[in-house]
Amino acid sequence: MEVVSLPPLVRVAVCGGTHGNELSGVYLVRERLKKKKKEEADTVSVMTVMSNPRAVQQCRRYTETDLNRCFTAATLSAPVSDRTPYEIVRSQELNTLLGPKGTDDAMDLICDLHNTTANMGLCLISYSDADWICLHIYKYLKSEMPAVPVRYIHYDVPLSEAYSMESVGKHGFAMEIGPQPHGVVRADIFNVMKEGVQLVLDWIHNFNSGVWFDGGEVEVYTMVKNIDYPRDAETRTITAAIHPQLQDHDFCLLHPGDPLFLTFSGKTETYKGVEPLYPFFVNESAYYEKGIALSLARRKKWLFHPFK
Amino acid sequence: MEVVSLPPLVRVAVCGGTHGNELSGVYLVRERLKKKKKEEADTVSVMTVMSNPRAVQQCRRYTETDLNRCFTAATLSAPVSDRTPYEIVRSQELNTLLGPKGTDDAMDLICDLHNTTANMGLCLISYSDADWICLHIYKYLKSEMPAVPVRYIHYDVPLSEAYSMESVGKHGFAMEIGPQPHGVVRADIFNVMKEGVQLVLDWIHNFNSGVWFDGGEVEVYTMVKNIDYPRDAETRTITAAIHPQLQDHDFCLLHPGDPLFLTFSGKTETYKGVEPLYPFFVNESAYYEKGIALSLARRKKWLFHPFK
Repeated sequence: MEVVSLPPLVRVAVCGGTHGNELSGVYLVRERLKKKKKEEADTVSVMTVMSNPRAVQQCRRYTETDLNRCFTAATLSAPVSDRTPYEIVRSQELNTLLGPKGTDDAMDLICDLHNTTANMGLCLISYSDADWICLHIYKYLKSEMPAVPVRYIHYDVPLSEAYSMESVGKHGFAMEIGPQPHGVVRADIFNVMKEGVQLVLDWIHNFNSGVWFDGGEVEVYTMVKNIDYPRDAETRTITAAIHPQLQDHDFCLLHPGDPLFLTFSGKTETYKGVEPLYPFFVNESAYYEKGIALSLARRKKWLFHPFK
Repeated sequence: MEVVSLPPLVRVAVCGGTHGNELSGVYLVRERLKKKKKEEADTVSVMTVMSNPRAVQQCRRYTETDLNRCFTAATLSAPVSDRTPYEIVRSQELNTLLGPKGTDDAMDLICDLHNTTANMGLCLISYSDADWICLHIYKYLKSEMPAVPVRYIHYDVPLSEAYSMESVGKHGFAMEIGPQPHGVVRADIFNVMKEGVQLVLDWIHNFNSGVWFDGGEVEVYTMVKNIDYPRDAETRTITAAIHPQLQDHDFCLLHPGDPLFLTFSGKTETYKGVEPLYPFFVNESAYYEKGIALSLARRKKWLFHPFK
């Protein structure tokens, strides 16, 4: 049996406020910055980062451009001037602080905290479907948080084109929790995030302490495509909402012919795809401007080996 | 028995987008502007108005100042210059279009469409607890929409200080529907609003056609006070969220000693008032900046006479 060994995760970053109106992460980061927990210092150094303080201050997703689309190799190396959007300047600062991306100096792991208006429970979102650290953390959260639906989403994008914050670390994921309106902090969602982050740090501590981890089977949702709202040909305004039968039903298999949209005049439009797929980010408010009504994923099982 | 007679409601306005990110009203107004329904022309002329098109375009509550706080006598008569906030200029335009407030030329009735992140169902919000037109419409909606919780909220403010849009009409109310995140349109909430507006217009048609209306008893919630979040003395950032036992429990009687907030460090804070009151606008995202975590109301029964 093949057994792999991986170096300990010594430098870890917990980041919130990458989107300034996703408040669970904003208040969790504020709370952590106030407390400076001691117990984490044992085997790991945890840096807590407020990613986009200007957007947080305004309680908006971003001030000029979406920070969480700025971490591509191209944007991180783009020249800056006085007219460069704040978020591009900030992404380069964060790359210096937590990276540089793709180098030995980068953080061992970045956990970036997000909320969604979609009914997605707790999702770890990563650019790899074969990162054993991330998959093991996922497995640990799933077993330790039985009351919360925990899932793993994989975006199949090469590292240089990976656009979001966690791609700056050697390992990393976004922890996405919903449903919660942006600009709102709900105690239940906050507590799930707080527990999730603590479990991530617990797992890292165990890993660094030499605990043996069993292998096993996990389910991974790999993003296949996005679907936009029906729109008026001239004005580009949307002409339908997510169908009530799909609303709040993230990760419930969508079959060809299933209701997808309900137009504002009352007509149902169905899913025209040929393959049943799993919807997620269903009716995420920040994605209207990106032309995404929902995303669709293929689910696969992934067997992995024990390690340490 | 006293029987009153009231003049017909000939000129009615249905307004949406007063807050640009409250999308049920935005899309309902767009849909109505597209269709220009004919059947309403029988006994009543209905004007459909997009109140704050700039905020709608940006999908924000407002661009410079909250439009729905600009309809006081003082603001409506304030001199304007190049530096006057857009929403103040717009409130004066709307006052010309739908008012002037307090005059015979004003609309007979204004129905202004809103959404809230709070779990409030459908509420009619009015500055009067004795406006028979509004109370009868409320009674009609309540009886015709048995699947939806329908309530009537009264803000006890004199007309000249009444700050919101519907105060420009001879009669008027905000139709507030939630929960829905701002920047999101849910088909279920949209359909409740669409049905609610149609029932309002149906009632007006019946009223104008000389239908006799029974009197009866209705419950009215009168706003007593607002409660702010616990805040850090220095930074003024909030230090707690609405307690999970209160979250989503709008209109469930809150007793002295009941949990009110859960601090981010996990401590429960209780309601310190001496009188049990009914909470509403619990965790409305737009009210964080206004220092309102929830509002509290006293409930009373109101008996009224039949009329026509």
